[in-house]
Amino acid sequence: MTSNSPNRSVAIDDPDELVITTLRALAIDAVNAAGSGYPGTAMAMAPVMHTLWSEYLRYDPDDPNWANRDRFVLSVGHASILLHGIIHLAGVVSVDPRTGPVGEPAVTIDDLRSYRQGNTRATGHPEYGVTAGVETTTGPLGQGIATSVGMAMAQRWTAARLDIDGIGLFDHDVIALCGDGDLMEGLSYEAGSLAGQQQLSNLCWIYDSNAVSIEGSTSLAFSEDVAGRFEAFGWQVLTVDDANDRPALRTALDTFRETTDRPTLIIVTSTIGWGSPNRAGTQQAHGIPFGPEEAAATKDVYGWPTSPTFIIPEEAGHHLRSTLCARGRTARADWDDAFEAYLTSHPELAAQFTTMQQRGLPDGWDDDLPSFEPDPVGIPTRIASGQAINAIGPNLPWLVGGAADTGLPSSTLMWFPEAGGMQPTQPGGRNIHFGVREHAMAAITNGLTLSNLRAYDASYLIFTDYARGGIRLSALMGLPVVHVFTHDSFEIGGDGPTHQPVEQLASYRAIPN
Amino acid sequence: MTSNSPNRSVAIDDPDELVITTLRALAIDAVNAAGSGYPGTAMAMAPVMHTLWSEYLRYDPDDPNWANRDRFVLSVGHASILLHGIIHLAGVVSVDPRTGPVGEPAVTIDDLRSYRQGNTRATGHPEYGVTAGVETTTGPLGQGIATSVGMAMAQRWTAARLDIDGIGLFDHDVIALCGDGDLMEGLSYEAGSLAGQQQLSNLCWIYDSNAVSIEGSTSLAFSEDVAGRFEAFGWQVLTVDDANDRPALRTALDTFRETTDRPTLIIVTSTIGWGSPNRAGTQQAHGIPFGPEEAAATKDVYGWPTSPTFIIPEEAGHHLRSTLCARGRTARADWDDAFEAYLTSHPELAAQFTTMQQRGLPDGWDDDLPSFEPDPVGIPTRIASGQAINAIGPNLPWLVGGAADTGLPSSTLMWFPEAGGMQPTQPGGRNIHFGVREHAMAAITNGLTLSNLRAYDASYLIFTDYARGGIRLSALMGLPVVHVFTHDSFEIGGDGPTHQPVEQLASYRAIPN
Repeated sequence: MTSNSPNRSVAIDDPDELVITTLRALAIDAVNAAGSGYPGTAMAMAPVMHTLWSEYLRYDPDDPNWANRDRFVLSVGHASILLHGIIHLAGVVSVDPRTGPVGEPAVTIDDLRSYRQGNTRATGHPEYGVTAGVETTTGPLGQGIATSVGMAMAQRWTAARLDIDGIGLFDHDVIALCGDGDLMEGLSYEAGSLAGQQQLSNLCWIYDSNAVSIEGSTSLAFSEDVAGRFEAFGWQVLTVDDANDRPALRTALDTFRETTDRPTLIIVTSTIGWGSPNRAGTQQAHGIPFGPEEAAATKDVYGWPTSPTFIIPEEAGHHLRSTLCARGRTARADWDDAFEAYLTSHPELAAQFTTMQQRGLPDGWDDDLPSFEPDPVGIPTRIASGQAINAIGPNLPWLVGGAADTGLPSSTLMWFPEAGGMQPTQPGGRNIHFGVREHAMAAITNGLTLSNLRAYDASYLIFTDYARGGIRLSALMGLPVVHVFTHDSFEIGGDGPTHQPVEQLASYRAIPN
Repeated sequence: MTSNSPNRSVAIDDPDELVITTLRALAIDAVNAAGSGYPGTAMAMAPVMHTLWSEYLRYDPDDPNWANRDRFVLSVGHASILLHGIIHLAGVVSVDPRTGPVGEPAVTIDDLRSYRQGNTRATGHPEYGVTAGVETTTGPLGQGIATSVGMAMAQRWTAARLDIDGIGLFDHDVIALCGDGDLMEGLSYEAGSLAGQQQLSNLCWIYDSNAVSIEGSTSLAFSEDVAGRFEAFGWQVLTVDDANDRPALRTALDTFRETTDRPTLIIVTSTIGWGSPNRAGTQQAHGIPFGPEEAAATKDVYGWPTSPTFIIPEEAGHHLRSTLCARGRTARADWDDAFEAYLTSHPELAAQFTTMQQRGLPDGWDDDLPSFEPDPVGIPTRIASGQAINAIGPNLPWLVGGAADTGLPSSTLMWFPEAGGMQPTQPGGRNIHFGVREHAMAAITNGLTLSNLRAYDASYLIFTDYARGGIRLSALMGLPVVHVFTHDSFEIGGDGPTHQPVEQLASYRAIPN
């Protein structure tokens, strides 16, 4: 592999096609170099990813934590090389959690070369806190899209509570890319159903429909009418018949942007491992390295040099970064101006927002906490917890939360007058009715927290078995989420062993962090 | 409370109404006596339950383990008093797991009087193995209906493999009663989607749609078009606008019976706590005792004596039992005759079936098990596991199983020629493609096992967090299910911490049994 190979020049004139093919070739090379990984989805979705980042996302790569950035979530976490590749091309910078952007690239070419190996930031699945530009940890299927629902609820809440003049300070969108695996998980149905009930028009899921799973054709196990399912949830459903049809994708994204009353699903039909002469459209393209021969054959189809590997043409990065910046920097500058004015017009709200962004707590948040005298009889801890929530709630205006339909028995309702329920007609409400959806509740609470609300959720301890996948991610990401577990006693008695939490506490202590 | 109260006589002449009102009054009295429990759903669904048991179920109360009985699953496990009440009225007998029916009532009046208290068999949620007539343990929402999918797959498998002349030896139906809570759980979507893909026309879910949840109106969190959702899954959807409209329910059940190409959902609109002057249609009817005053007021509406409590008119039991037996005994007698003939015509299959019913294993099932010599390098345990499955498979004809789309990497595929995939066109297949649905997979595997197939399922150890609710029930019921957990090493490395099963083994050891 030399940098002056005679084949080095790339005969792709169209700059968009250049970016797309760079991403595709990178996926092939990185998985080959790692000896494991997932090339096929990255190859299929490269045009979607490029169109989204270059033409739609309002995102400033020089400040990946800008509060009003559009959120992009890669729910198909196994396709992490696609996200890492675009973060690299866009020149997203690293962030120090205390001081902000530090100017160094979030993902270097060396990271990409060591994808999945050692201390690379091009991790096997996207990891929040490790790689700037990654909005949430994904990999366990369904978690990304469910978390995106929490982000969308948080955006709408923030707009309702803080942007009281409606000047668009907090008007970002949340867009997630998901696959068949995500949509087969029960978690995705729970989250999709609640997103429909909440009419989250700021939320878009792009569904990569490739009809291929690890075991073969998805028809072996998945024959549902996905469009009908989402329409039943109250979503808008749009279709793009070919992942390479960028004009069709543009039309769909424009329609999403114009829609104000419901979330949008864009079904994109794709060919996994697009361009590969022998693996395109097969499960072999999903999670197996292509090897040198098929890599070369595929690059021939792309009109891409077969060597060296890891060609990243400067023009590709320049094109993506310039299109992204042209929009993102302008939006960012306008926002800065608006926030300056907001600091003057609404100093208290602006201060509140700044504290939220730092994940701080307001002065006096615990002023009204009740103290409980030692008492031989005592009160149930869930009642004490309810009193504490209602003592903190008025002093911590961005505390939101709720339960999986156990709000009354779990004592998690905020009952002071200005709390209210979070509903489409009242998006700034503080009480969230998650429904009987423990798993989505945990993931949505992660999303609310990633967007800097202080969020809690609650259920009977026993039913948190259903939510374990989401709770584990709270721990892995180190998020300040409060999961309230009530009814934690064997003494629940009359309900019987299905309701007796014998082992749950021990098993939660075993989760890392 | 005396048995010779002057109010004892019940002024309800219609025997069906008598059974229904007996069940309703029992729910009120039992919850009042226990001081906790769930009266409202039992009161609403009593007409549905009575119609189903008296006019449809093919069930012999004197042999609740008869192999070809229709299976009834109460997925709304909190309404257990309804199931216990009907088991009592029908005179279902107890069963000794080794010797069969023992002639004593499965649920006595004393059990009902001590509902939720002490060693009663009228447990707070139905418990398999504790109360004869209970087909599976329910309570954690969604588990009952998901388990019913496994039972339906098992019925169809058994018919395809053993009833080779199609004489109807194994032609029973599987009917489950579920509620809003069940249908909000992701588990129910996973199971419903797979049931649609499998075209399980022997499966019917009756959905009690009462628009009330613990936190209030279901519209707070659940606004999806349930009919549209199930149609998207490929189900037939029928509606009954009033739970008291027994002719309409009959029509729907008849349509279910006549349908041969897909599962059926019957949406029954009901009023929770039906008849209660002050609580009907409210969340107060769900999980709070009525207390003596509201109990009396409700019984007045029913035309039922306000005292004593626990009135169980003999005529009610006689009517239900006679209608059930008239059908169930005949069906059972016909079946016995057919099985006699089958013993002669297909002795090997009959012997196989008998061994299955005893949850035994055939002679020689382990004859071909490979032995693995000590080897410093060794082979991956999942490869050894795959070899073992394929050594056992041909000798254990009712071994079925599969994975949540990790069949190849988890090495759980049976690859010998006669194995085949379980699909609508090939219902006797041995390999089940569960799709990326870990939770439903576990519950369905419980259902397959309850119907006496030997079933295994598989996923990466880390993703069993998603399946924990189902795995816990395997343990509580003491079922011989094999859950295969592969990729159990920290060394999965490149996929990152979301895929590293650090704590799962410790937490499974903590589950009872």
